[in-house]
Amino acid sequence: MAVYTHVDADEVTALLSHYDVGTLSSLIGIEQGVENTNYFLNTDKGHFILTLFEKRVDPADLPFFLGLMHHLAQSQIPCPMPVARRDGAFVSTIKERCAALTTFLEGTMIARITPAACAEIGKALARMHVAGQGFPLTRPNTMGLPAWKDLFEKTRAQADDVKGGLCDILTKEMAFLSQSWPTDLPRGLIHADLFPDNVFFKGEGLCGLIDFYFSCTDFLAYDLVICMNAWCFEHNVSFNITKARALIEGYERIRPLTAEEKWRLPTLARGASMRFLLSRLYDGLNQVPGALVKAKDPTDYLSRLVFHQQVPSFTAYGLDP
Amino acid sequence: MAVYTHVDADEVTALLSHYDVGTLSSLIGIEQGVENTNYFLNTDKGHFILTLFEKRVDPADLPFFLGLMHHLAQSQIPCPMPVARRDGAFVSTIKERCAALTTFLEGTMIARITPAACAEIGKALARMHVAGQGFPLTRPNTMGLPAWKDLFEKTRAQADDVKGGLCDILTKEMAFLSQSWPTDLPRGLIHADLFPDNVFFKGEGLCGLIDFYFSCTDFLAYDLVICMNAWCFEHNVSFNITKARALIEGYERIRPLTAEEKWRLPTLARGASMRFLLSRLYDGLNQVPGALVKAKDPTDYLSRLVFHQQVPSFTAYGLDP
Repeated sequence: MAVYTHVDADEVTALLSHYDVGTLSSLIGIEQGVENTNYFLNTDKGHFILTLFEKRVDPADLPFFLGLMHHLAQSQIPCPMPVARRDGAFVSTIKERCAALTTFLEGTMIARITPAACAEIGKALARMHVAGQGFPLTRPNTMGLPAWKDLFEKTRAQADDVKGGLCDILTKEMAFLSQSWPTDLPRGLIHADLFPDNVFFKGEGLCGLIDFYFSCTDFLAYDLVICMNAWCFEHNVSFNITKARALIEGYERIRPLTAEEKWRLPTLARGASMRFLLSRLYDGLNQVPGALVKAKDPTDYLSRLVFHQQVPSFTAYGLDP
Repeated sequence: MAVYTHVDADEVTALLSHYDVGTLSSLIGIEQGVENTNYFLNTDKGHFILTLFEKRVDPADLPFFLGLMHHLAQSQIPCPMPVARRDGAFVSTIKERCAALTTFLEGTMIARITPAACAEIGKALARMHVAGQGFPLTRPNTMGLPAWKDLFEKTRAQADDVKGGLCDILTKEMAFLSQSWPTDLPRGLIHADLFPDNVFFKGEGLCGLIDFYFSCTDFLAYDLVICMNAWCFEHNVSFNITKARALIEGYERIRPLTAEEKWRLPTLARGASMRFLLSRLYDGLNQVPGALVKAKDPTDYLSRLVFHQQVPSFTAYGLDP
């Protein structure tokens, strides 16, 4: 997490001249953000976040991401509201990078994940899914099954160097997922990366969802199992069924799952495990020496995958049969 | 620049229970700070900076640094005001590190250094020197002449690997400084590290001095030439006499230099160049692979040293004869 691109007060003041947000009074480079550079700005009119999009974000996707955040914020989903320029656009350019200004959300990352927090996540995710139905744009999931196949091909030769037997596990799992991945579940707008560092709380209450730069159109229940993987395993990667039940019950209080979605949860969870296992494996194998961000351990997601492979049915996640 | 030590909202909330600063609403790790970890905090009572002191700061020095900031802030010097705990102390402990909470100062680092900004720096430095006279504690300069000798001994063998002929230059300069370093100039509280990233401006006006963690008791005019080196050379290390004149005139508007101080400026400037040349040389030679902070190029300060060696008298800095 780091500031990749430095901007100075003159550059930001020039940028702000295109907005109606007042005069810059503080400019603080912040650590948050794995993919992009973020600055916290004070002006005489309020607090803002300035995001500079680094190479992993395709500028062609920005109208989707920023339009979506605007739509969700208008729909009372607690997410940063992109600030429009005087010319109506959400995207600016600074230091040869695309950039966006959003409102600043108060709140902090949760320090200790409780079942109550998981219930809040479930409700917020379902509300986001419902609100997303009114958003007209779509974006294919660039980290879906075809991407997993591609990452698998790029990592298979070295996988066993990371962990003995990993190549065999990945080969079999890719075969399973290629055969079994659903095609006909309810689709819509998903966040696709709702990890604890992308959610703000104030006390027990959820008050912010951030970082929509993987959001796309895919199975809604797939987003739920990404959350289950991110929120319902302990640090030692043991599954906490109480947290999973709280997450899914919270979700269903706003948007009940269909019978088909429930039945498909274990397969979706295997896919959600593979998605992060493969991207972390790839990032670890292709790490640049001296990189600012350390690649995450892929084996945490291997453990999740093995857990979901052994699950007999969705009741293992705390749902009633 | 980086967050070296991570703290979470629970840890900070526990810490804040010792202060009367309200309830935590935002916790943002910030990039600013080469030596220490800094977080920006919002509470319902205001904005604060939480500093965690990493290994380069000796905990025994904290009463001096924080007491000084408190004294200066009370004397209307625009610097962060340390916030006292309910038990009256300025120093807390978090994550096995000493920590301090200070008020947050608005303002931004200046993007383009102008002569007017240098005049502001001169005035602010002199005001700080005058206000420092009322501060009862003292602290020897741990980066003074004895430290240069030590750094020279530790780097001389490898100096020529960094730049051909450097060892010879350093040897001769150490001999000169050991012989010629003043002993009887006006002394007092100095900042000792007032580089552009430690000064905040709002428009043309100086509104903040930060990072007092090298401050100590030494020659006041030495602090002025540290500033001259930091503010009055262009990026190509050419000396800008207009900026130097503005700096020194600004300083003298508040605290006129004595004849002896003026006469000694070139020698003091050679020492100020050696101090940063040697510490950067040492840091560069002892850089840990993958370190978060890249060592600065020592040759920028070699160029300054060579400039000051050739200066015939203080008139070269824009002062009247």
